[in-house]
Amino acid sequence: MTDQTLEAFDAVDLIRTKRDKGELTTDAINWLIDAYTREYVGNEQMAALAMAILLHGMSRREIRDLTLAMIASGETMDFSGLGKTTVDKHSTGGVGDKITLPLMPLVASYGVAVPQLSGRGLGHTGGTLDKLESIPGWRADISNEEMFDILRDVGGVICAAGKGLAPADKRLYALRDITGTVEAIPLIASSIMSKKIAEGTAALVLDVKFGSGAFMQDYAKAEELARTMVALGQDAGVKTSALLTNMSVPLGLAIGNANEVRESVEVLAGGGPADIVELTVALAREMLTLAGQPDADVEEALKDGRAMDTWRRSIIAQGGDPDAALPVARETHTVTADADGVLVRQEALPFGIAAWRLGAGRARAQDPVLHASGIDLHVKPGDVVRAGDPLFTLSADDAGRFPRALDALEGAYELAAPGTAFTPEPLVRTRIA
Amino acid sequence: MTDQTLEAFDAVDLIRTKRDKGELTTDAINWLIDAYTREYVGNEQMAALAMAILLHGMSRREIRDLTLAMIASGETMDFSGLGKTTVDKHSTGGVGDKITLPLMPLVASYGVAVPQLSGRGLGHTGGTLDKLESIPGWRADISNEEMFDILRDVGGVICAAGKGLAPADKRLYALRDITGTVEAIPLIASSIMSKKIAEGTAALVLDVKFGSGAFMQDYAKAEELARTMVALGQDAGVKTSALLTNMSVPLGLAIGNANEVRESVEVLAGGGPADIVELTVALAREMLTLAGQPDADVEEALKDGRAMDTWRRSIIAQGGDPDAALPVARETHTVTADADGVLVRQEALPFGIAAWRLGAGRARAQDPVLHASGIDLHVKPGDVVRAGDPLFTLSADDAGRFPRALDALEGAYELAAPGTAFTPEPLVRTRIA
Repeated sequence: MTDQTLEAFDAVDLIRTKRDKGELTTDAINWLIDAYTREYVGNEQMAALAMAILLHGMSRREIRDLTLAMIASGETMDFSGLGKTTVDKHSTGGVGDKITLPLMPLVASYGVAVPQLSGRGLGHTGGTLDKLESIPGWRADISNEEMFDILRDVGGVICAAGKGLAPADKRLYALRDITGTVEAIPLIASSIMSKKIAEGTAALVLDVKFGSGAFMQDYAKAEELARTMVALGQDAGVKTSALLTNMSVPLGLAIGNANEVRESVEVLAGGGPADIVELTVALAREMLTLAGQPDADVEEALKDGRAMDTWRRSIIAQGGDPDAALPVARETHTVTADADGVLVRQEALPFGIAAWRLGAGRARAQDPVLHASGIDLHVKPGDVVRAGDPLFTLSADDAGRFPRALDALEGAYELAAPGTAFTPEPLVRTRIA
Repeated sequence: MTDQTLEAFDAVDLIRTKRDKGELTTDAINWLIDAYTREYVGNEQMAALAMAILLHGMSRREIRDLTLAMIASGETMDFSGLGKTTVDKHSTGGVGDKITLPLMPLVASYGVAVPQLSGRGLGHTGGTLDKLESIPGWRADISNEEMFDILRDVGGVICAAGKGLAPADKRLYALRDITGTVEAIPLIASSIMSKKIAEGTAALVLDVKFGSGAFMQDYAKAEELARTMVALGQDAGVKTSALLTNMSVPLGLAIGNANEVRESVEVLAGGGPADIVELTVALAREMLTLAGQPDADVEEALKDGRAMDTWRRSIIAQGGDPDAALPVARETHTVTADADGVLVRQEALPFGIAAWRLGAGRARAQDPVLHASGIDLHVKPGDVVRAGDPLFTLSADDAGRFPRALDALEGAYELAAPGTAFTPEPLVRTRIA
């Protein structure tokens, strides 16, 4: 693109258009993303535009154009040479959300390629790559060639997105984080979908979370996000569906990194907490349906060891030792029930924050994660407890981290009188396709 | 301020508060402006906040806090040692607006000190300092000590605001220009008023313009801006009033720099166009009323040479020669009427743009101004013309500038059939105090 083309539009005009509730043309959006990638449009200009987009929205056509422009800002991948269909899953993130770990090998064990580009945790939500790095030797950063080979030989791979994929999105994502514009649905949707479409997957299942531990707490906004992303995927020729799932309670019993890997392995061994099994199976059915296997008996593959076998082979393919001991924290602190009762509330957000304060998450992108830190729940909402029963255990190498974690948990759970009725909310609320 | 204080607030929280239509506390605003001045809060964060402020507004208390915080970011001036009252005027800018030139000496000739901090032109509106720099030797950049001396000895001074006055505003003003957030009324009001209050004037008259050649074209928005600024001034202990004046037609007959000085000198000599005299007199009455001289016969001071005398002494005090020849352009191009008729329309904005294209204004802050370039109008709306009569004359050293200036004037004026009735709009529409 010549300098003349860089002057084809004026960033201030584009900002004013969105500010005044207008629509940006396709040419304007293409120019904007190209000029932003090349740093001709500045972060201060994109920040003002992002705020206007957050407050005034974008049309379906604008969101599609924005997504395609972000894809065009970098390289794209092509798995058509694999000889098998590809299907990916994306979760908007939550507390205790380790579903990718059992899900990838489960779906891959049906002969479907699962190129699972994943992220790291930030704030109270964990990151799949951080969890897997608890496994000695396991590497997230693999080349596109290695990725292709593992997909062909093992069937599933979980890795970081290459730096070349949607670079405009990377710059915009970091900017949104510091400018109060994270929650703009058009920008969330185009950020997620640009990477997934650029990755070249044939099908995609979205796990869009709502509830206190979710990024998008409000159900209506989560549904709007899900519908926006499904439309975007379909417009781009990717078979896309979404499940709206409840994230008001932590998923499973483990919140952290190494302990979440342990729990995932239990699920792959045919056991594990009921909610993890339920969501893993629901997402696997959705993925296999899009991949042309609607009748696959996914629960069977968890029980007969096929999924576990794929898991082990994938860990080995990425340099890890599936039999190595996972890190264990030096100190633990267990909180017990002070009376008999029924657990009627266990809020995802404060448990996520507490785990983060124990060192399981990071406050800034460059911070390290402490793999042995975390929380193990002993009971879930609806469970009956007796006075003195353990409710949850905090783990960390440094006991000095416990007080601030316990502060976060003040009022985060509730024991009601024995015999109190409790009706759990359904885990999967809506399917959008 | 220690680093701990720099971390007292989080810019993202403040942005989210305004984004979600909340109010910022006084402490938060003080922190924000201090942290922005010290570059701890980035331009991208301030740009997102400015967009949220533009779209959601600010309360009177927030605007006052913002203004006071911007004043506190730099030095303040104190004219209390002068032994006479001070009164300043601010215009929001327009086409042909040279009112400060006759107004300052007129008011100063009544023994009132007029510390007139002025700006340079940008875009289609001219700048008072640019106009005065047409006068050989005249200097805008004078020290605070010189300013004090001239105010004491001559009574009036027109100069650039010192760099130390409201530095936070300087940074924010430049940012707004490139982020589509210029039109945010709380930011316009606090930008103007922070400098005027920091300057230490006892009284202030605002000339807030509306109409096609004004910065704030819509009357209702101009009135909102005027009311906001009057309230701000009064809250800060500055006697403040505002006139809302029509800027849909160029002011006077001269648009440019040297030619506007010439026209101003005509007014000081007791002549000049009726609209310039009317507005100068109206603003002088307003200023003298605030200064405790409501009965001053300001028209008399224009006729008896007192105002001219003060003008000459002020030009000399700032290094200029009031008798020096002003620059004249090498080339002119006169447009004539192609039929008999009545001039019923003469739009300020295109005439401002045409003068700008002739070189009278600048596109970027660092560009020079061509002092001899400009437009001289030969007729005003309501005037009867005969075929062949001159309508206006373009002036520039380079005749190559004429075609683009004429392009801007396409459709900018209209001759109606002879005998068509024409009713001019009043120049001064509303007074707010």
